[in-house]
Amino acid sequence: MPKVTVHRQAHFNAAHRLHREDWDEAKNKAVFGKCNNPHYHGHNYKLIVSVTGEIDPETGFVIDLKELKEIIKADVEEAFDHKNLNIQVEEFKNLNPTAENIAVVIYNRIKPSLSSQHELEITLYETPRNFVTYKA
Amino acid sequence: MPKVTVHRQAHFNAAHRLHREDWDEAKNKAVFGKCNNPHYHGHNYKLIVSVTGEIDPETGFVIDLKELKEIIKADVEEAFDHKNLNIQVEEFKNLNPTAENIAVVIYNRIKPSLSSQHELEITLYETPRNFVTYKA
Amino acid sequence: MPKVTVHRQAHFNAAHRLHREDWDEAKNKAVFGKCNNPHYHGHNYKLIVSVTGEIDPETGFVIDLKELKEIIKADVEEAFDHKNLNIQVEEFKNLNPTAENIAVVIYNRIKPSLSSQHELEITLYETPRNFVTYKA
Amino acid sequence: MPKVTVHRQAHFNAAHRLHREDWDEAKNKAVFGKCNNPHYHGHNYKLIVSVTGEIDPETGFVIDLKELKEIIKADVEEAFDHKNLNIQVEEFKNLNPTAENIAVVIYNRIKPSLSSQHELEITLYETPRNFVTYKA
Amino acid sequence: MPKVTVHRQAHFNAAHRLHREDWDEAKNKAVFGKCNNPHYHGHNYKLIVSVTGEIDPETGFVIDLKELKEIIKADVEEAFDHKNLNIQVEEFKNLNPTAENIAVVIYNRIKPSLSSQHELEITLYETPRNFVTYKA
Amino acid sequence: MPKVTVHRQAHFNAAHRLHREDWDEAKNKAVFGKCNNPHYHGHNYKLIVSVTGEIDPETGFVIDLKELKEIIKADVEEAFDHKNLNIQVEEFKNLNPTAENIAVVIYNRIKPSLSSQHELEITLYETPRNFVTYKA
Repeated sequence: MPKVTVHRQAHFNAAHRLHREDWDEAKNKAVFGKCNNPHYHGHNYKLIVSVTGEIDPETGFVIDLKELKEIIKADVEEAFDHKNLNIQVEEFKNLNPTAENIAVVIYNRIKPSLSSQHELEITLYETPRNFVTYKA
Repeated sequence: MPKVTVHRQAHFNAAHRLHREDWDEAKNKAVFGKCNNPHYHGHNYKLIVSVTGEIDPETGFVIDLKELKEIIKADVEEAFDHKNLNIQVEEFKNLNPTAENIAVVIYNRIKPSLSSQHELEITLYETPRNFVTYKA
Repeated sequence: MPKVTVHRQAHFNAAHRLHREDWDEAKNKAVFGKCNNPHYHGHNYKLIVSVTGEIDPETGFVIDLKELKEIIKADVEEAFDHKNLNIQVEEFKNLNPTAENIAVVIYNRIKPSLSSQHELEITLYETPRNFVTYKA
Repeated sequence: MPKVTVHRQAHFNAAHRLHREDWDEAKNKAVFGKCNNPHYHGHNYKLIVSVTGEIDPETGFVIDLKELKEIIKADVEEAFDHKNLNIQVEEFKNLNPTAENIAVVIYNRIKPSLSSQHELEITLYETPRNFVTYKA
Repeated sequence: MPKVTVHRQAHFNAAHRLHREDWDEAKNKAVFGKCNNPHYHGHNYKLIVSVTGEIDPETGFVIDLKELKEIIKADVEEAFDHKNLNIQVEEFKNLNPTAENIAVVIYNRIKPSLSSQHELEITLYETPRNFVTYKA
Repeated sequence: MPKVTVHRQAHFNAAHRLHREDWDEAKNKAVFGKCNNPHYHGHNYKLIVSVTGEIDPETGFVIDLKELKEIIKADVEEAFDHKNLNIQVEEFKNLNPTAENIAVVIYNRIKPSLSSQHELEITLYETPRNFVTYKA
């Protein structure tokens, strides 16, 4: 059967801050600039979850989008939406929530929910002008 | 010469329905949900046709976009636009018009119109949030 | 208190057809063109519901968006999404589902759910290139 | 001379929280829902500043866009971008930073920087689906 | 019958330059900045033509969009698309092609093609961030 | 460390013309159509610069976006924005500024500014409907 990639777009709105405890204020400011603001800032993150696999000849689906939508909701949206990523998402307690790191964390959350025949790629827009893509 | 991918966006507005004659109503409803509505529903499909090849040193084109536009019009838009995919497009008489299957059908329609040096990829948006990518 | 307009975007995917029973086939074809296809075609309709009123000094809201979202869901999305407008929506049994008429029907469905202090405007996109605006 | 409206789009990314000190936790939660998160969340705010006036027959401009860009930068972006609106923007120390209130505050900041012949309207997108419009 | 506004989006790609023959180079540079480049620069102009009128009870249309599309093509696209506005469009031989002036010129070209019952508004995007609106 | 692609969007507005001096007018017209206009036309080019590399474990960045923004500004925007590509950009004095060739030229300008560990891909939109992708 033909191999097709199915993409599903989702969103979450969150606060974050880029900062290293082991660096002094001057170095944090120099490297992270405005993103180091101690009171946080935030984004409307746009997420595209891309799943590649063979078309199921019975349904015509690679993956049922209703199912994929539920996976994204359970693994990402409920944990990230309207949250402070640094304080309220476990993985970022010791990891800077850069777009790069958030994409890897989302990949690692969603991958175990997929069938092993499915490949996964994550695209994350921090703003319409800055975005990242990750697959393992 | 450098190899470049040229992308051309097109559109068609169509009705469709997901349904298997060999399944009973309950199974059709369970698998296809709202998309099983017997009276059809529809979408503004957005299509991106991506052609990869070497730049022609004379023209600076991989493929003349006027030509690609005509191929898409003849092979896809005239057959799909303002149509009922299940009833009025030959390939879907026995094939569910899921986004995945539509993308494969479009690939198979356009490929023979291209030069053999050109690779083809199809991206099809069923909605801004749900889309698929296919190359053979 | 300042008067502000709050806009909420929603979507529904539906099939439709433009047709008058009292006209013959030639006249229907001449006036409605491809939109007269007897097997229907469809669109991803994008809807913007705009509510104007004074800011409530207690909440800072003109209208609670959670409430507006529910009104749109109950009055429009549940009735229109994944439906055939001509066959499955009461108002279009004897009214052509043009973008203009759909916008008026949506206005008339939502208006009674709003407080009398609130003005309403409906913007309906049939495609990204064709859209209409209506307020009574 | 003809009267034209000139629109300029800008952006700021900020954290915020909806909350009233004089309400208990249960009431705050009931009214503001997820937006009441004590650790804040955030948005990519998109701002459209619309200035109406007569075309200057010498330049063909209603207002020089380079000038309008500087006004938006000085009055809004430098104060709001990569900030926590509740903590770091004076006006929101005792005012909930709802989209409605933010639009009014932006109007009041920009209006004095414009010529008295110019009318002003503010459109503020909190997300692509939720936005507000304000003019005095 | 209800009064509805119908919007149709169109496009043209053109070169232009802002310049006054009666000003010296220094003043032209000071007022028009980069837009004064003697070799021209260009834009993908996005045009929204908005026509307001009563719904025709027979068709459900305010104006037949096929007709409006032809008016825009004849009055604007054929004259402006892939053209140098300063050199090749009559109205700009002695008028700076600012977005404001282009919108007024487009209004004056389209208005006589419409029925006298129809009101007209022109929205012209010079870039996604800079746009203007005009109605007489 | 995981390998991630970071994408940064930028823009430039420019005039151009497709033309070969060694072809006669008829051939130029036949091959390049409206794009052969001797007085030029223009576009709002949208550019996406995609850099792939390992995440730096100290910063969480593949590349500092402030740095990438400066590279794009220095290598592309300052040379191309509000310019006539044929006349004012060295590389196009003897090379047709098709989207394909512009993408290759941009690649060759940016590549030397990046670390040798970074892979580069260029996406260039000439219009929202026509775009190209290039990597060496």
